[in-house]
Amino acid sequence: MQNTKRLRNYGVNIGDFSPGVLNAITDVPGVKVGHTTLSDRNMQTGVTAIIPHKGNLFKEKMIASCHVMNGFGKTTGTLQLNELGTLETPIILTNTLSVGTAADALIEYMLKSNPDIGKTTGTVNPVVGECNDMILNDIRAGFIQKEHIFQAISNAASEFQEGSVGAGTGMVCFSLQGGIGSSSRIMQFSHGMYTMGVLVCTNFGVLKDLTINGKETGKEIFHLHPSYEVKDKGSIMIIVATDLPVSDRQLNRILKRTVTGLSLTGSSLSTGSGDIVIGFSTATKVPHYKLNTLLSSSVIHEEDIDIAFHAVSEATEEAILNSLITASEITGTNGNTRPALKDLLEKYNISII
Amino acid sequence: MQNTKRLRNYGVNIGDFSPGVLNAITDVPGVKVGHTTLSDRNMQTGVTAIIPHKGNLFKEKMIASCHVMNGFGKTTGTLQLNELGTLETPIILTNTLSVGTAADALIEYMLKSNPDIGKTTGTVNPVVGECNDMILNDIRAGFIQKEHIFQAISNAASEFQEGSVGAGTGMVCFSLQGGIGSSSRIMQFSHGMYTMGVLVCTNFGVLKDLTINGKETGKEIFHLHPSYEVKDKGSIMIIVATDLPVSDRQLNRILKRTVTGLSLTGSSLSTGSGDIVIGFSTATKVPHYKLNTLLSSSVIHEEDIDIAFHAVSEATEEAILNSLITASEITGTNGNTRPALKDLLEKYNISII
Amino acid sequence: MQNTKRLRNYGVNIGDFSPGVLNAITDVPGVKVGHTTLSDRNMQTGVTAIIPHKGNLFKEKMIASCHVMNGFGKTTGTLQLNELGTLETPIILTNTLSVGTAADALIEYMLKSNPDIGKTTGTVNPVVGECNDMILNDIRAGFIQKEHIFQAISNAASEFQEGSVGAGTGMVCFSLQGGIGSSSRIMQFSHGMYTMGVLVCTNFGVLKDLTINGKETGKEIFHLHPSYEVKDKGSIMIIVATDLPVSDRQLNRILKRTVTGLSLTGSSLSTGSGDIVIGFSTATKVPHYKLNTLLSSSVIHEEDIDIAFHAVSEATEEAILNSLITASEITGTNGNTRPALKDLLEKYNISII
Amino acid sequence: MQNTKRLRNYGVNIGDFSPGVLNAITDVPGVKVGHTTLSDRNMQTGVTAIIPHKGNLFKEKMIASCHVMNGFGKTTGTLQLNELGTLETPIILTNTLSVGTAADALIEYMLKSNPDIGKTTGTVNPVVGECNDMILNDIRAGFIQKEHIFQAISNAASEFQEGSVGAGTGMVCFSLQGGIGSSSRIMQFSHGMYTMGVLVCTNFGVLKDLTINGKETGKEIFHLHPSYEVKDKGSIMIIVATDLPVSDRQLNRILKRTVTGLSLTGSSLSTGSGDIVIGFSTATKVPHYKLNTLLSSSVIHEEDIDIAFHAVSEATEEAILNSLITASEITGTNGNTRPALKDLLEKYNISII
Repeated sequence: MQNTKRLRNYGVNIGDFSPGVLNAITDVPGVKVGHTTLSDRNMQTGVTAIIPHKGNLFKEKMIASCHVMNGFGKTTGTLQLNELGTLETPIILTNTLSVGTAADALIEYMLKSNPDIGKTTGTVNPVVGECNDMILNDIRAGFIQKEHIFQAISNAASEFQEGSVGAGTGMVCFSLQGGIGSSSRIMQFSHGMYTMGVLVCTNFGVLKDLTINGKETGKEIFHLHPSYEVKDKGSIMIIVATDLPVSDRQLNRILKRTVTGLSLTGSSLSTGSGDIVIGFSTATKVPHYKLNTLLSSSVIHEEDIDIAFHAVSEATEEAILNSLITASEITGTNGNTRPALKDLLEKYNISII
Repeated sequence: MQNTKRLRNYGVNIGDFSPGVLNAITDVPGVKVGHTTLSDRNMQTGVTAIIPHKGNLFKEKMIASCHVMNGFGKTTGTLQLNELGTLETPIILTNTLSVGTAADALIEYMLKSNPDIGKTTGTVNPVVGECNDMILNDIRAGFIQKEHIFQAISNAASEFQEGSVGAGTGMVCFSLQGGIGSSSRIMQFSHGMYTMGVLVCTNFGVLKDLTINGKETGKEIFHLHPSYEVKDKGSIMIIVATDLPVSDRQLNRILKRTVTGLSLTGSSLSTGSGDIVIGFSTATKVPHYKLNTLLSSSVIHEEDIDIAFHAVSEATEEAILNSLITASEITGTNGNTRPALKDLLEKYNISII
Repeated sequence: MQNTKRLRNYGVNIGDFSPGVLNAITDVPGVKVGHTTLSDRNMQTGVTAIIPHKGNLFKEKMIASCHVMNGFGKTTGTLQLNELGTLETPIILTNTLSVGTAADALIEYMLKSNPDIGKTTGTVNPVVGECNDMILNDIRAGFIQKEHIFQAISNAASEFQEGSVGAGTGMVCFSLQGGIGSSSRIMQFSHGMYTMGVLVCTNFGVLKDLTINGKETGKEIFHLHPSYEVKDKGSIMIIVATDLPVSDRQLNRILKRTVTGLSLTGSSLSTGSGDIVIGFSTATKVPHYKLNTLLSSSVIHEEDIDIAFHAVSEATEEAILNSLITASEITGTNGNTRPALKDLLEKYNISII
Repeated sequence: MQNTKRLRNYGVNIGDFSPGVLNAITDVPGVKVGHTTLSDRNMQTGVTAIIPHKGNLFKEKMIASCHVMNGFGKTTGTLQLNELGTLETPIILTNTLSVGTAADALIEYMLKSNPDIGKTTGTVNPVVGECNDMILNDIRAGFIQKEHIFQAISNAASEFQEGSVGAGTGMVCFSLQGGIGSSSRIMQFSHGMYTMGVLVCTNFGVLKDLTINGKETGKEIFHLHPSYEVKDKGSIMIIVATDLPVSDRQLNRILKRTVTGLSLTGSSLSTGSGDIVIGFSTATKVPHYKLNTLLSSSVIHEEDIDIAFHAVSEATEEAILNSLITASEITGTNGNTRPALKDLLEKYNISII
């Protein structure tokens, strides 16, 4: 990843499994991530796009699922995702009040590469997740335009920035600057090796609850540097990608286990906003157009699934911590600001090992 | 309603309960409906807005719920609706690829009347449903603009048109021109009288399955006038309003019973698109801002709920048939057209009594 | 089937698809059904067992799912069925207060043929459905003993009785004697022919709502023979079997469409009891013990699923009507009795064609 | 509680809220707990009964809900619990293969005090949860008889034992002796003080994952005393009681937050068995028989719910740790045994403060 000090650079390793080469969701072959960042005074927002594979997503759909830990959110596209068990677009993340614009842009993007949509075949299901960045961003101003979504998609690459970028620009997590984080795990089965990748947009928690690998770093900082938030607004978007061959039901079970990693960072799943997990497997492509044969596929035996449960939990925990440790302090709307974790660790000489 | 011949004008009464004065969703006190209709050659689409009450919807939320019969649809806002059991915006219906634009407009509308949203309180959850009008409308052209949503909202009134208007403009139902339909029922309980109102946007079914009050009118027409569709694409949006005091759980049970009325018209809930029910009760207003006291409310005893089940089933069946019988033939994109039921009944001298 | 006059013997054919040879759930290869009937004065109850295939069910599980239309019921085993998407025991139907005894017996039966359960491998998930037969049966007396479950299982065969037998003995449906009914449909796809089978235990509805193939036979009878019930207690168990290769998600979508067939008979899904659908596909066997390889399977393309939707709807409607038309009048607890449909049709010379 | 050293006696306090007087689920007024323990060589099993209030539970139902974290379990009664949002019996916990017997006994118990059930009113929905005790108990032997359930119910009291008693007798948790544990929290709102109580039956986890208040005690022990299990079988039953006035939807949201407390002890929600939460509020009694009026009730504002989220998370974490620290070593079937946490702490002189 792009030359920023991440959690492992501080000597902190989460869990037992090894990460992939990039230690990012893009370790899953074919997955790419791109950002558009809008950061200028009261405008602190952006877009993050996750591209599941480089083919035509509408024609070759991914096995997919959505799990809602807390539905106090405005993510769109989830009904069809769970009804059909497939994803047919990139996943876009942005601020809460720009979901409509992002859905609109994503539809336009899909129409361009699929002239059959809405003509000779049905419509398309745009998937857009969101977090509320109103503390740092003037969210009512509606800064996000359709071209920002197109840019994020075309920026997509294997290497991407974390922290206060893209949809993560204006995020506040554990009363600190939050944002985008990612991590991955290599999973070994008798039938092969696979990768589990996670990307998060973190916007939840109050400082005193922050736990880093079991250490109550949040309480330690809080005593030195009392924080702003007294009330957790609790939102997180978690995107899970894997090349493990799973059914949509199995994938859904895997998505449910992100909550254990999330809990270990100190989240209490507070009421105030949405905690939503969207995942896909690239192992099986589901063709849009019907063939004259049955669709064949392979999936893991249910007994094997605990490996994936551990992998996704570890990767989620580390992705969240990466989002915090890579974020930089921003001054946003009304002069609001949240300190960066890395600055506080340095300022107060706090060790997280 | 506005001077069109409806099902009861043909002598057909559905079920045992009496309808309200307007026999429409707007019989529920405070509920209003408005349309924007875009009908010109290849542009056959529109917007329908349902306003739950005349107060500030964000500050005084309605008990609400959503039931998904078939999730192959792009309706947005359902996660929060079911998580919190409340509705805080008008409900907008439009075509499938305009959900993003409609959500965007609905957000803008809500921001205008609520300067606290995104400043001193959280965000807002826009609820937008959709049906795919690509047979008659050039859906890829993106005709719907934000002002069309604003117009539909400001057009809202107790009396409103049915048939090929608003979001129903380009609908095809049972291979005929479909559209917007509505109906209501008066419910008598030991503790008072209440109204159940239903509004539908109908876009499903093939001609031979159409059943009117138990009569296989579809088969009768089909022998005289073979239809176009061989494959049902199956989409319907059902909006339920009531002033019956119910919990969100009870309301959800009521919404589930719309399927019996839907089935009686000949639907087979085919895979091709979304069959989604959104409902609200105006009996209890849930305040956005917390008071220092508990919230008191009253609900019916579960034993009473069968009356509501029957009412919603009857009103759904009649609303669907009203959408068909009031629709007019339209010539849309590519010169596509679907006959109007009323014209066929007259042409072939078919009785539906 | 066993020499009773069924719906088709009256000249009534439901829907467009052809039934299988037996027109019963047992047309699905390997499926067997057995009853134990306890019918003597105040004891009017029993057990019905559905055996999915003749192999070891625990070692070779079926793809399975459960759909709850109305959860006011006591069916057990559904949590695991939906979590893992598999069925590993016969399905037992009995009266509501005997679910515990039946679960107990089913566990004992499974332990006998699987000495590894609870020793070297985990436990087993018994699936037991129920309807309340308290009108005709002294349900408080607890007549069902474990041996009655064993008997029903060992009685299982391809040909089986319908009407007031087994778990259907004490059922009341549309104010008439209800019970067990079955039907099947042959489904033709480009990739082969498959069978959809349905078995129901019917215990819902009031006479005036009974609809036979679109005819309001219930109202017709009601005018001649006013019925007992004024309030629908609304329970039905629907068992769906197929050899169509489907995923558990696809199967669940199929199960949801039984409601259209159910609605066409006049059900209003009243609050009073459980309306529950349990289904399985025999196409793929899921091994209990993990292999070192991935599990391969084939499923239909989602576009193909409408054929299954129609098949299951038709078979459900006909199975319900078969349960009514084959039932015989019984005098049960407190001298309670409900007339048999066949007797009323004859007595009043009513045609149902 | 009964004179055993609990977590707080070791100087470990979980979270920020104060516990109730007993620091147990029975701090919620009216709630009682009783055990039947069967502990003799290969018989290491039992029954735990939770009585929600001292009135007639069937006539005065509790607001209730069920949340399934992992449905690989055989808990019964959950369909109706979630459909109607009420609980009408005691909750019984026992071993997995005795759920049928327990349901049977619970029905018999309810029939005795309600002569109208199955005569002049409908049936009753027994709620029975389970964990698999096959490591220490010869679960195939079927030791549990109906009288053991009756005994547990009649033993119910405010003070009750924890650890290897009742349904917890044969439990294995984090490779140690598990069992029954409980804890409570006092919640302060502007409108009053309420209690949140939790009781768990713990049967999950492997030693190295055990975390006590953020300390990796499991790893510490593991280095000194390698454990038996290499594979987590992951089952836990969590019973939540409160006198907080909440709707069934709000209660369900509260139940979902038990997972954060569970995660903090080291659970990974492994595939192998059921993780199920059942909860009830005693604040509102729902009458079985319909009155001629609406039912009035009060609930908290959604903004207040975070207090309950924190309370239930803390109480769950502490209840789990109480189950471990109070358990005693048992030698069961095949001479199997699991060490008691308290013995290992003493033997190796490990501090958990």
